[in-house]
Amino acid sequence: MLRFAILGHKATTSPDFSLNDMPGGAGRMDVLCRCINSSFFLSHDLRRDTECYLILEGGDPHKTLRFSGETIRSLNPDERSAGALIKKGLSTPAEPEFKKAADGIAIRSAGLAELLQEFSFAVLDENGEDIRNAETLPENFILSDHMNFTEEEEALLKDLPRYSVGPRVLHADHTITVILNEFDRRKRS
Amino acid sequence: MLRFAILGHKATTSPDFSLNDMPGGAGRMDVLCRCINSSFFLSHDLRRDTECYLILEGGDPHKTLRFSGETIRSLNPDERSAGALIKKGLSTPAEPEFKKAADGIAIRSAGLAELLQEFSFAVLDENGEDIRNAETLPENFILSDHMNFTEEEEALLKDLPRYSVGPRVLHADHTITVILNEFDRRKRS
Repeated sequence: MLRFAILGHKATTSPDFSLNDMPGGAGRMDVLCRCINSSFFLSHDLRRDTECYLILEGGDPHKTLRFSGETIRSLNPDERSAGALIKKGLSTPAEPEFKKAADGIAIRSAGLAELLQEFSFAVLDENGEDIRNAETLPENFILSDHMNFTEEEEALLKDLPRYSVGPRVLHADHTITVILNEFDRRKRS
Repeated sequence: MLRFAILGHKATTSPDFSLNDMPGGAGRMDVLCRCINSSFFLSHDLRRDTECYLILEGGDPHKTLRFSGETIRSLNPDERSAGALIKKGLSTPAEPEFKKAADGIAIRSAGLAELLQEFSFAVLDENGEDIRNAETLPENFILSDHMNFTEEEEALLKDLPRYSVGPRVLHADHTITVILNEFDRRKRS
């Protein structure tokens, strides 16, 4: 199983956002929608062995949505489709443990610290080791949205291995695409 | 200069489409919006040395929109932003030669055949040569949207070199991301 967790620093934790204003009123939810797209979509297929965690930090408490490629339904590639599923997920009251909100979607009232206790993550960082040079690749990746990690987050992440996807710094969703392409190539060989 | 040309087989040639229904009423315009995103966006920067051509085949005559990274303005990463610029481009009456519709956006009433006469293109094809193995890379790429090339298009493309981005077939926008990552790495080395 591959896991991508994306920090949405301003992303709302309420389902009451407009699909017509995801960059604004929803706190750059558009970034997270594109990360869902890049985590799952193949041409005419879905990556069933991938999970995508959205850590929504634009409310108190933080909430985490888990999307599972194995069981997700009704997901289309456009941003509004992912946004509609995020709204559906957020409509389910969140408790400390993951609870099913819809097929392939679960929610809990917890954030980065809790997720780091469950899986060994690597961090995407422009100064990290190039994934192409890594002898083995980690399976779980933490990425940030359009903002840098906060000091508090950096403190949680400081001992984790760091990887980069090349010489230019890319958007989170493009980074996921490049990582998955590297996995696709290694699986074949 | 790198050039990506994407065929939108059902994409409308009229500006009268809704930003709320780009997958449906606009003929999968969402696919083309994501290709604009992946052609241009870096983290906190734009790729100025890239052009993106959208070949809109959902009307008669076909129309081609040219987006130039060097001069484009008001482009944000979300699909609606690209969609709004497409609408703006399509609001300018199209003639056989490219005409400026806005900063960095030009339009003409021509399609694939005309574009192929201007530049030497390579075709993205799952059976093509892997870009990682290519000694030199072409600079101009033709991609299809969610549909296969038509017989008529295949006839126009049959003698062009073919490349792939790995063992899995990806969406057009993801393919562009992987190609640009390969260019980024080669430029550095």
